[in-house]
Amino acid sequence: MFRIQLFVFFLYVWPFSARSEDGSRLWLRYDPVSDVVAQRRTVQVNQKHETALLAQHELNTYWRGTSIQLNVDQKEAKLKEGYRISFSAGAIRVTAARPVGLLYAAYHLLRLQETVGEIDPLPIEEIPSYDIRILNHWDNLDGSIERGYAGRSLWKWTELPDKISPRYTEYARANASIGINATVLNNVNASPYILNTAYLEKVRALADIFRPYGIRVYLSVNFSSPVILDGLKDADPSRLEVQDWWKKKVKEVYKLVPDFGGFLVKANSEGQPGPQDYGRTHAEGANMLADALKPFGGIVMWRAFVYSPTSEDRAKQAYLEFVPLDKAFRDNVIVQIKNGPIDFQPREPFNPLFGAMQHTSQMVEFQITQEYLGFSNHLAYLAPLFKETLDSDTYGRGAGSTVAKVTDGTWHPKRVSAIAAVANIGEDRNWTGHDFAQANWYAFGRLAWRHELSSEQIAEEWIKLTFHTDETFIRSTKEIMMPSREAVVNYMMPLGLHHIFAFDHHYGPEPWGDRKGGRADWMPWYYHNADSIGIGFNRTDTGSDAAGQYHAPIAEIYGDRTLCPENLLLWFHHVPWDYRMRSGRTLWEELCEHYDRGVKQTRRFQESWDRLEHHVDQPRFLAVQSKLKIQAKDAMWWKDACLLYFQTFCKKPIPFHIERPIHALDDLKKIKLQLTHHN
Amino acid sequence: MFRIQLFVFFLYVWPFSARSEDGSRLWLRYDPVSDVVAQRRTVQVNQKHETALLAQHELNTYWRGTSIQLNVDQKEAKLKEGYRISFSAGAIRVTAARPVGLLYAAYHLLRLQETVGEIDPLPIEEIPSYDIRILNHWDNLDGSIERGYAGRSLWKWTELPDKISPRYTEYARANASIGINATVLNNVNASPYILNTAYLEKVRALADIFRPYGIRVYLSVNFSSPVILDGLKDADPSRLEVQDWWKKKVKEVYKLVPDFGGFLVKANSEGQPGPQDYGRTHAEGANMLADALKPFGGIVMWRAFVYSPTSEDRAKQAYLEFVPLDKAFRDNVIVQIKNGPIDFQPREPFNPLFGAMQHTSQMVEFQITQEYLGFSNHLAYLAPLFKETLDSDTYGRGAGSTVAKVTDGTWHPKRVSAIAAVANIGEDRNWTGHDFAQANWYAFGRLAWRHELSSEQIAEEWIKLTFHTDETFIRSTKEIMMPSREAVVNYMMPLGLHHIFAFDHHYGPEPWGDRKGGRADWMPWYYHNADSIGIGFNRTDTGSDAAGQYHAPIAEIYGDRTLCPENLLLWFHHVPWDYRMRSGRTLWEELCEHYDRGVKQTRRFQESWDRLEHHVDQPRFLAVQSKLKIQAKDAMWWKDACLLYFQTFCKKPIPFHIERPIHALDDLKKIKLQLTHHN
Repeated sequence: MFRIQLFVFFLYVWPFSARSEDGSRLWLRYDPVSDVVAQRRTVQVNQKHETALLAQHELNTYWRGTSIQLNVDQKEAKLKEGYRISFSAGAIRVTAARPVGLLYAAYHLLRLQETVGEIDPLPIEEIPSYDIRILNHWDNLDGSIERGYAGRSLWKWTELPDKISPRYTEYARANASIGINATVLNNVNASPYILNTAYLEKVRALADIFRPYGIRVYLSVNFSSPVILDGLKDADPSRLEVQDWWKKKVKEVYKLVPDFGGFLVKANSEGQPGPQDYGRTHAEGANMLADALKPFGGIVMWRAFVYSPTSEDRAKQAYLEFVPLDKAFRDNVIVQIKNGPIDFQPREPFNPLFGAMQHTSQMVEFQITQEYLGFSNHLAYLAPLFKETLDSDTYGRGAGSTVAKVTDGTWHPKRVSAIAAVANIGEDRNWTGHDFAQANWYAFGRLAWRHELSSEQIAEEWIKLTFHTDETFIRSTKEIMMPSREAVVNYMMPLGLHHIFAFDHHYGPEPWGDRKGGRADWMPWYYHNADSIGIGFNRTDTGSDAAGQYHAPIAEIYGDRTLCPENLLLWFHHVPWDYRMRSGRTLWEELCEHYDRGVKQTRRFQESWDRLEHHVDQPRFLAVQSKLKIQAKDAMWWKDACLLYFQTFCKKPIPFHIERPIHALDDLKKIKLQLTHHN
Repeated sequence: MFRIQLFVFFLYVWPFSARSEDGSRLWLRYDPVSDVVAQRRTVQVNQKHETALLAQHELNTYWRGTSIQLNVDQKEAKLKEGYRISFSAGAIRVTAARPVGLLYAAYHLLRLQETVGEIDPLPIEEIPSYDIRILNHWDNLDGSIERGYAGRSLWKWTELPDKISPRYTEYARANASIGINATVLNNVNASPYILNTAYLEKVRALADIFRPYGIRVYLSVNFSSPVILDGLKDADPSRLEVQDWWKKKVKEVYKLVPDFGGFLVKANSEGQPGPQDYGRTHAEGANMLADALKPFGGIVMWRAFVYSPTSEDRAKQAYLEFVPLDKAFRDNVIVQIKNGPIDFQPREPFNPLFGAMQHTSQMVEFQITQEYLGFSNHLAYLAPLFKETLDSDTYGRGAGSTVAKVTDGTWHPKRVSAIAAVANIGEDRNWTGHDFAQANWYAFGRLAWRHELSSEQIAEEWIKLTFHTDETFIRSTKEIMMPSREAVVNYMMPLGLHHIFAFDHHYGPEPWGDRKGGRADWMPWYYHNADSIGIGFNRTDTGSDAAGQYHAPIAEIYGDRTLCPENLLLWFHHVPWDYRMRSGRTLWEELCEHYDRGVKQTRRFQESWDRLEHHVDQPRFLAVQSKLKIQAKDAMWWKDACLLYFQTFCKKPIPFHIERPIHALDDLKKIKLQLTHHN
């Protein structure tokens, strides 16, 4: 009944509209309703808040259903930024505690309208899993983007604040439509100049545009800012002068941006300055900033991505540095932890820090931009990767202590919870380079909103919104998306292999990579440890014992090669080439099998997509088709490079049913890509 | 019984001898016998002729069987250069009319010894199919080789005649061992300077080395030689001065090389000078040279490879020019005709000139060097191509008038018969670049000796001699070789497509090729004629009527698309994309099928070869393995280039079970290979 009334004016719109599909509309491809439709229903709101009015405006413009009453009701605080949707007296009633809740509800209704999906029984009640759902832009002030593969930065720093690109609003709307409510504008390798007054004026301009969409601005800050900007002799957080500098700076920021979110800090990591430069701890550094932000309600997101060129296994270092500080952080500090212990690899185990710090707020940092998954050339739907981490049980407080539960406020209900991801957005017309990379932005937003959603559900929503609702198209496209991340794992780094990428650009394979005098933990051999006996990193108690950083029983499972999940085997174990896998194949054969499967998967994606030619608009069909060609070719490159290289250690033939290499190892070693577009 | 006695001392030698296998020994990998073996038998000869003594020497050195008596018997003239092998009174008896017959018999016996093959019942009698079995070297005086892919020229013109490379003898012996008895030393695009006295001295040095092996030297001559070398005002063959110049020159040649074979001439073709420059016919030009050579027993091989940038179908031009001259040539002129009417394509119909000239001696010119079949990178065993032409029935004198019969002396028993092929030999250690390209040199020799031999029989012989006699190895290697030429046809130019190669170098695909102002008949579109309706060259009576140049019933068969063999369909017909093929598939689908099959065949070759790793020496295993990788990669390149390009005309999808392209057409169009090593 509800469905019928909701969609009483619904008209099925065939996907091939006259409008050229360049991907710029993302998943927001609603067309305004006709006057006739608009006059048949009303959209009322009980508040004049700009965000509430925006909700009303969106529905007025695009809603083809029955009348709607939007109400802000502060008594419903438990809804947080969420909403309730019910139906009574012939109209849809939306209730939210805050105006932004109405906006999210508006997008919820429009999503239902566009996807013609099954509707949960009324009332619908949605409360976000995380308080802060934030994008990290690694955008530099010169317009480049570190690890960005969709053109240059959206933020036109040289034009701001005078000239305002229409894309700023489109950006805010796109984020709001999936529940993202925060953004860090600049690279974690931060220029101190972002805190210059001139830049803060530019930041204000953006914040003003984002505000109606419920998006708060954050900044990455350079720990040495006081020194560089104002000539302080150092940035020692224990010195009053330094503390005062930050307090003054924060005050300036809030004057310009009253709802400023806070700071993101990469300190004492990969050459960035930090409190350790002065013998202070991460906590002392973070707390100084937290104290400055506290009066304004700001928070500090302090990154745990730290590692030094020491003899200690890189995978262990963040844990070793941070766990001893567990009780030292202020309440408004959240330690931001990459999903895995190394660095956004195609597959990693969850980071052992999750659940290890019982007293400190923790948040996950995902990477939407595909630094390690084929840039914007490869189709890799990342929701399964995000889910894999969120659903991992840390056993931090016994069974059920999933990463999601550790970070979503369950452990610290009185503090703000947060989840972050490094954006894949640039000024390309389609925002993300690859049309399917939009799905990863979308999926992060949806999971940040409700981490219980399934990857498949999100994929289906996204496909319907971004393309259309043709059943064949949805089914086939899901069949491409769902296994796509695993395909990348297969042709790049199966069975727990990691970080055997080409130096610096991380696009192609370079398991042989080595640089005289370079840091060991930047060399592929550091990670794969291939030798005549076997391959893999021994992180058991006979090796680095990184497995020992996990809670029981995970430590035991990861530490025992007969128990360790095979998809992480070489992460934790150095395994003989002849080791018998569960399939009955030897390790070497299994490795070959995975690489070959990866190649064949990419070909299957090509075939599936080509079959959809007449189910999708031509511009995006062709764009995706050509990217899939690159992916299929790259998969062969990866397979040949890795198998031929590892074969020099194992000295075994590639099983004959495996497609033969088409490259010579020596030729592959000569490939030096001039990839500079990413920063 | 015979077999036992023949091989009484035979010891099975395992192929992996200590000697490093670099391919330099070709199919002549016998090791000298021990003194013990040598002393158990005798090898006697009834003549002191240097060639007879060489036969004795070869057997003395390598023969592990019973005693042998070698006899020259001039009464056995019908054996020509052949021999009879019988067995009586405990010894093998070899009879030949000429000393070289003994040498050929010696290699026959050694081949039997090495291959452990089944032996025909005694007496063995072999009479060569052709009198002249000749290689054409397209070697330039500067040491480069036109269309050569195995390094630079064997002939060190700057060192000769003073310094003699040991490879000259090895070359002669290799040819003699397969019955080749003649060689044209220099390129048909001939430098006049080859007839300078200084160069003739060098030629003499080579002829002296080749003579004991029964090999006579020929030269390509430039028709303008009298003008360029001695300043005659022209080279008009009707002028006495010109005729005298040639007579004098020929006399000089014979003084230095008394058994000189004669001249090969490319005239009035692709910019070469010729009699037509003076309004004279090919016959008048050829006859002038023939008259000069006649007193010394020399002959003229006059090439029919002529075509002008006229509106007439290039495939028809040789026929149109030469047929009217049928009765005009001297007896010691042989018209040398490329196997097909265009130019050594992966597949062509036989040249319609064969059998069309009833009075003129004709000879086939094959191309061993793989100008159009992947250079020395692709494995393509060419015996099936050679056989396809030789076995083609021209119906010139009714059924059974195969190209072989037209050319082997059956039609003109009193004149010399000949067969030629463009060599693939260079100074590479393995002579031919690709180890398997040796098989094409070998196969040409064997077929020139006995055109009845089957491709498979020759392949088997060659494998046994070149590698070893392991059954698995022979079977698997034959499974690579036998379909290999068809694989090239599949991934380059199936169904009668031709000449869609990249301009100039003829390695990669360029069906889109076009050069403003260039000759139409050098452009791929001239040959494929792809348009929205279909593809192929209409050579029926509604088109150029090249099919009409064939005798009945071939003209009717080729001219009717329902009768035309499908592997030549697009050679003779412009066929609609939707045309229903015998398979039930449309033409477009069938085209896709062939290209895909070609790619898969190359992968199968890789797999089969890789499986043989432990059945073959490592150096050659690796060399061939890496060439097969290139071939597999190139096959994908060809497939994608042709299908994506033709798809722009037919606008149909590539059937979905066909592996998807991995290249973008625009990228493929940008490929410009800097291939200069071939000339």
